Amino acid sequence: MSQLDALLNPRSVAVVGASADPHKTSGRPISYLLKHGFSGNIYPVNPKASEIQGLKCYARIPDLPKAPDVALVLLNARHSIEAVRELSALGCRAAIVLASGYAEAGDSGLAMQEELKQAAGAMRLLGPNTIGLVNLSAGIPLSASGALEVSELPRGGIAVVSQSGGILGALLSRAAGRGIGLSSLVSTSNEVDLEVSDFIDHLVDDPDTRVIALYLESIRHPARFRAAAERARAAGKPVVVFKIGRSEAGARSASSHTGALAGEDRVYDAFFRDLGIVRADTFDELLDIPAVLTAGRRMQKRRVAILTSTGGAGTLIADSLGMKGFEAPLPDEATAARLRELQGDTPAELDRNPIDVTLAGLQPDLLRQAIRTLLESETYDALVVIIGSSGLAMPDLVVGAIQANLALSDKPVLAYVSPHAPETLKRLNRAGIPGFSSPESCSAALEAIHVTSTRVTSAPAAAVTPAMADTPQGSLDEASAKQLFRTHGIAVPASRTVTTPQEAAHAAAEIATPVVLKVLDGTLLHKSDIGGVALNLGADTIAERLTRMQQAVAEHTGHTPQRFLVEAMVPGGFELILGANRDALGTSILLGAGGVTAELFKDTALHLLPDGQALSLDQAHAMMRQLISWPLLAGYRGSEPRDTAALAQAIVDFSTLAAALGERLVTAEINPLFVLPEGEGVVAADAVLVTTATAAAGEEIAHA
Amino acid sequence: MSQLDALLNPRSVAVVGASADPHKTSGRPISYLLKHGFSGNIYPVNPKASEIQGLKCYARIPDLPKAPDVALVLLNARHSIEAVRELSALGCRAAIVLASGYAEAGDSGLAMQEELKQAAGAMRLLGPNTIGLVNLSAGIPLSASGALEVSELPRGGIAVVSQSGGILGALLSRAAGRGIGLSSLVSTSNEVDLEVSDFIDHLVDDPDTRVIALYLESIRHPARFRAAAERARAAGKPVVVFKIGRSEAGARSASSHTGALAGEDRVYDAFFRDLGIVRADTFDELLDIPAVLTAGRRMQKRRVAILTSTGGAGTLIADSLGMKGFEAPLPDEATAARLRELQGDTPAELDRNPIDVTLAGLQPDLLRQAIRTLLESETYDALVVIIGSSGLAMPDLVVGAIQANLALSDKPVLAYVSPHAPETLKRLNRAGIPGFSSPESCSAALEAIHVTSTRVTSAPAAAVTPAMADTPQGSLDEASAKQLFRTHGIAVPASRTVTTPQEAAHAAAEIATPVVLKVLDGTLLHKSDIGGVALNLGADTIAERLTRMQQAVAEHTGHTPQRFLVEAMVPGGFELILGANRDALGTSILLGAGGVTAELFKDTALHLLPDGQALSLDQAHAMMRQLISWPLLAGYRGSEPRDTAALAQAIVDFSTLAAALGERLVTAEINPLFVLPEGEGVVAADAVLVTTATAAAGEEIAHA
Repeated sequence: MSQLDALLNPRSVAVVGASADPHKTSGRPISYLLKHGFSGNIYPVNPKASEIQGLKCYARIPDLPKAPDVALVLLNARHSIEAVRELSALGCRAAIVLASGYAEAGDSGLAMQEELKQAAGAMRLLGPNTIGLVNLSAGIPLSASGALEVSELPRGGIAVVSQSGGILGALLSRAAGRGIGLSSLVSTSNEVDLEVSDFIDHLVDDPDTRVIALYLESIRHPARFRAAAERARAAGKPVVVFKIGRSEAGARSASSHTGALAGEDRVYDAFFRDLGIVRADTFDELLDIPAVLTAGRRMQKRRVAILTSTGGAGTLIADSLGMKGFEAPLPDEATAARLRELQGDTPAELDRNPIDVTLAGLQPDLLRQAIRTLLESETYDALVVIIGSSGLAMPDLVVGAIQANLALSDKPVLAYVSPHAPETLKRLNRAGIPGFSSPESCSAALEAIHVTSTRVTSAPAAAVTPAMADTPQGSLDEASAKQLFRTHGIAVPASRTVTTPQEAAHAAAEIATPVVLKVLDGTLLHKSDIGGVALNLGADTIAERLTRMQQAVAEHTGHTPQRFLVEAMVPGGFELILGANRDALGTSILLGAGGVTAELFKDTALHLLPDGQALSLDQAHAMMRQLISWPLLAGYRGSEPRDTAALAQAIVDFSTLAAALGERLVTAEINPLFVLPEGEGVVAADAVLVTTATAAAGEEIAHA
Repeated sequence: MSQLDALLNPRSVAVVGASADPHKTSGRPISYLLKHGFSGNIYPVNPKASEIQGLKCYARIPDLPKAPDVALVLLNARHSIEAVRELSALGCRAAIVLASGYAEAGDSGLAMQEELKQAAGAMRLLGPNTIGLVNLSAGIPLSASGALEVSELPRGGIAVVSQSGGILGALLSRAAGRGIGLSSLVSTSNEVDLEVSDFIDHLVDDPDTRVIALYLESIRHPARFRAAAERARAAGKPVVVFKIGRSEAGARSASSHTGALAGEDRVYDAFFRDLGIVRADTFDELLDIPAVLTAGRRMQKRRVAILTSTGGAGTLIADSLGMKGFEAPLPDEATAARLRELQGDTPAELDRNPIDVTLAGLQPDLLRQAIRTLLESETYDALVVIIGSSGLAMPDLVVGAIQANLALSDKPVLAYVSPHAPETLKRLNRAGIPGFSSPESCSAALEAIHVTSTRVTSAPAAAVTPAMADTPQGSLDEASAKQLFRTHGIAVPASRTVTTPQEAAHAAAEIATPVVLKVLDGTLLHKSDIGGVALNLGADTIAERLTRMQQAVAEHTGHTPQRFLVEAMVPGGFELILGANRDALGTSILLGAGGVTAELFKDTALHLLPDGQALSLDQAHAMMRQLISWPLLAGYRGSEPRDTAALAQAIVDFSTLAAALGERLVTAEINPLFVLPEGEGVVAADAVLVTTATAAAGEEIAHA
C-alpha cells in the first residue's frame, strides 16, 4: 500500500487532539468517522480523557498500540510540529494537519511550516491549514468540515481536489444537495508536501474516479502538474478546473508588449487548453460539467433534439443552446414519421423541435417511444428533456422513460427542470441523468461534452534540448538579437554594424537601397522616443545623420552612443507581433496582429510550450487561424494573400529558439514581423531578446 | 375601478368550464382560489354539475346571478369564442382565455383568434393560450398553473409579466423556493388584446410593485412599450427584462452592411438601454436582479467590503466581483482601527478585505459591530456577507446581525451562502437581504444596482417632424442620395452628373483635381464589382474611360448605363460607416469603424431613435466613445487627432435626416465616411438611401 493509499484509504486513524465534545471542531472528526461508518481502528489522543465518544483514548502519541495508517492532527500550529515528529517516529504513514498560522500568516508562520516539514521526515503531510479529506467511495471522512453533517455521503465518479478547505465543504454540500456523486474530496491548502498534482496522479489509478474536478488558486509546480494531467488525459479521465485569480493584474513585470498583452490568466488558459483540461467559467460549472462528463457520453456534431412538456421552457433552452452555437434542427422525414405515428389522435404536433408533448400528456409509453425515436435519429447528436410542472407530479414517470432508453445510445441525454424542484433534480442525477435548473448550465455542460468529444491532439511538437549556454546574458542589442534570430532561420533585413559616419556611408552604399539608421544599445527599449531611429537614408545623407543622432541620444541619456545599425528599409507588409515570455508556468508564445489597431483590439493567440518542446507547424498554423485578422492574412475581399507558409515556419523557428533558451529566457519579441505577399517570406523588422544566467522565473508561483 | 383593476383584483370570478376534479387542469383554478383564500364570489359554470368543490354551479353563462368582474374560460378554442361573446353581453369586465389552438397554430387558428377578439366587444381579454395571472398581494390566483400547488404564495415587491405561461409557473415556483416576494404574475401569451405594455403601464401605479420583471419573446407594439417603460422610469420603478431570440439570425433582410452588422438582438439591446431597462443575461438573473433592486439601495462607486466566515469563499467572491470591475479595497485607517478594537484577543485579522472572522468565531456582537463598521466606512459602497457552513448552524445569528444594521445606511447589503442551504437563502430573502448561492449571480446583481444608481439620462434630443413626403421613393442613386445628405449638412465631394464622354471631360476640368468616375443607378448596390467605378482620372483620360465603363457595365447587367458621376477624389481619412435602419422597433443609427479590419472586429455602436427625435450632440459623442477604435480618432500614440467635432455634427445631421424620413426610411448608409484631421471636417465618399412610400416595416414584429 502506497503512502497515498494509506492516506486516502486507511485501516487505522489516530485523531490527535480529539475533543470529547462532538460539536467542537476538534470533536467533529471522530463523530463523522463513526457517523459515516468507518470500520477501521480509531485512536483518539488526548491527555485529558480516557474515553472519547466510546473509544479508548490515549494520553500521548507514543502510547498508541501501533502506528496508525494516518493521523489527523487537530492541535495548534506550534504543537502540531511536535505531534508530527512523534507520529513520524512511530511509523505513521501520513498526517493531516488542520492548524492554520503557517505560511499564510507571514514570515514566522513560514518558518514554522518549514519546521513542520522537517519534523515529518519520511511521513507524508496533507496541509497544513487544510480541512482534510473525504474518501466517499469507502465512506471514510478525515475532516472537520461541517458539510459532513449530511446524513448520507453522495457516492459517484467525481473526485474533487481543492486548494481551499471552505470550498471543499461547499462542494460536498452542494453535490449532496443535488444528488451528484463523488469518489473523493481532498483539500490541499498550504501544500507543504502533498499538492494537487500528487492527487491527480493518484486519482488516475483510482477505479472509483472517472472525472477529476479541481478548485485552484495557484499551481506550485507546473511541471508536476503537467505530468499528472497528461497521465489523466492518457487514461481518458477528464480534468475540469475552476481557477480563481482571473481578475488580478498579472503578477509578473512586463518588460515588453508581449507580456502586457498576454496577461497572467491567459497563460493559465493556454496551459489548461494545451493539457486538454476543461475550464469551468462559473463556480456552478465545477459541478455541472463533471456531472455530465461522468456519464461518459459523446457527441461529434452540434445537433440537439429538445423534448418538452412545457412550451416556453423549450424555446428558452433552444435559445440558450443557440447562444453556445448548438443547432436544433427539425426531425428528418423518417423521424418525423415515427413521431407522428406515436402521436395517434392527440392534438400535439410532434414533428417539430422543440418537440412539445404538453398536449399529448405525459403518457409513459409515448414519452419512452419519443425519447427512443430521438436517440435513434441520425439527425440528432444529443437530447435535452425538459420537465415542467406537470412532470413534477410524476417524476418517476419522466425519469423512468429516460432511464429505459439510456442504454440504446451513447448520445448525451440531459434534463432541464423548469420549476423549482430540488428533489426531482436529485432523483435525475442519482439515476445517471444530469439534471439542471439553469438553461445556461445545461448549455455549458453540453458544450463541455462536445469539446471533450471532438478535441484533436495536435501533431507532436519537435523536441528541443536547451543548449544555448553560450548566449550572451541580459538585454541583447538589436543587431545581436537579429543575428541570433537569423541563425535560427528567421529572415532579417540586410545590415551592417558601424561606429563612425564613414563606416555608415560605406555600409549604405553596400546595401544599395534606402536604409534605416538605429542606435545600438540593448538597454534602450524605446529607441525612437530618444531620437535613435532615422528612416529612408542613402549613402550621401547617412554620415551627417549619424552625427546628429549621436548628439540627440547623448542629450536624452547622458551617454554618447558608439554603435549603430545600418539596415535595408523593409518594403512593409502585414504587421504582426511574435513574442515569447518565460513565467512560472513555462514559456508562452504569443502571436498578435500588429500596429496600433491591433493594440486596441487585442487580437492575439497564445500557446504554452511544454519544456523542451517547440511548436509544430500544425500548431503554428492553428495559432494563425485563431487570430480574428486571419482572413486578412489569407486574402480577404480581394486583398493580397500573404506568405502564411513562411509565417508558420517563422513561428516554429522562433519557438525553437525560445525552447532552446529554456529557463534562461526572460522575453523575446519581434515587433513588427512583416508578412510579405505569398512566396516572398517574412522579415523581422525589429528584435528584442532578454535572457538571464539562471532560471528567469522560479518554479514556484506566489499564491494568487 | 378600471378594467385592468377588475382583471387583477376582482371581487367576483366566473370559472367557465370548471371541472369538479381538482386534479384536472380545468379543476385547478377553483381549487387554487379556495386554497389561497380568495374572499370574493366564485361562480363555476358547467352544464353537467350542480355543485363544484362546495360551490353552487351554473349551467350556462346567462344563468349567472350577476356579471362577474372577471371570467376564467377553460373551454377549447372553438367553444371559448361563444363563451366570450356571452360574458361580454352579460357585462363581464375582463376574460382570461386559456385555450390554445389560436394564432400560434397557423392560419385557421389566427382566424379563430380574430373571431375571439370580435366576440369580446368592450370586454378586455387576457390570452388566449395563457396560463392566467396571479395577484399575490391580494392572494388571488386566476390560473391553472401547477406552480400554485405551493402552500404559501411569496408576497413582495416584484411584478412579473411573461409572454410564456410555462415560464410564469417556473418563476412563481422558483421565487417561492427562494423566498423572493412577488406582487403579481401575468402571462400574456398570444396578446390578442391586453399585452405586456398594458401591464407595465398598470403596474407603474400599483403601490405593491417596486420592480417590474419581464420575460419577453417579442414586442408587438414598440411605441406603446416605450411609453409604458418611460412612465416606469419616471416613477422610479426599475424594469428588468430577459428576452429570448438572442441566437436567431435577425429576421429582417439586410440590404446593406449596416443591417448585417447591427443584428436584431443588438437593436433590442439598444432599445432597452435607451429606456433605462436592465437586461438580464441569464434566466436566473431575471429573479436575482429584481431581488436586489426591490431593496431600493444604491451605490455610486464600485468599492465592496466582503465579510466572511469562510476564507476560500471570500477569495471566490472577491475574484467574481473583480471580473465585473468591482474593487475590494483595504479598510481605511479609521475603519481598520475600529475593526481591530472589535477583534480583542481573537487571532483573526480583521483589517483586511475580505475580512475573515472565521477564527474570531460567530460572536453575535462582533458580527453586528463589524457589519456596522463596514457600512459606516467611507471606503465602501456596498457589503457582501458570506455565510459558511459554521453560519448554517446558527442562521438567525447572521441574518439578525445583518438585519440589525440595515437601517443604518442605504448601501447595498448582499449575502452569499457557500454551502447548499436553501432554507438559509429563503430566510435571508424574506428578511430583505438578497441571498445568493452563485458568486456570478451576486456580482451580476450588484452590477445592476450600480448601473441603475449611476445612470445618467442623456441630454434630450432634438424633436424632428417627419416632413419629407416629397423625397423620391425607392433606391436613390448615389448623386441623389448625396444631394439629400448635403442639404442636411453632411459634406460630400465636389461632383457633376454627366451622360456623355464630353460632359465628363468638361466636368473633370472644372473640378480640377483627380476625379473618380462612377456609374449612377440606384438599383446597383455593388458598383465596383461590375466595373462601375474608376479612380484617379483627369480631363484627358476620363472620356475614353467612360466609354469603356459603359461597355463593361452593359456586359455585366445587360443594360447600358446612361448616367455617371464625376467626383473629386477624397484625399482619404479615418474610415467609418454611418448607417440608419428602420425596423419594427424604430430607427437605429449605427456608427462603425470602416474598412475590412473593422468588418472583422465588428467595432460598432448602435442607438435607437425614439420616433420623432434625432440624436443630440451628447449622444453622438457617446456613440463615438463607445467604439474600440475611439482612441485612434482622438489621437493615439502620436497619430493625428481627427475632426471629432465635425463627426459628431455629421452623426446628428444624419440622424435628423433619418428621423425626418420616419417610417418611410428603409436604410441609409455612408460607407465610407472619411474623418479628416482636426479642423478639416468629414466627407461622405459614398451614399445609399432606400425609402418607401409607406411604413418600411409594420409595427408588429413576428414572434421570435
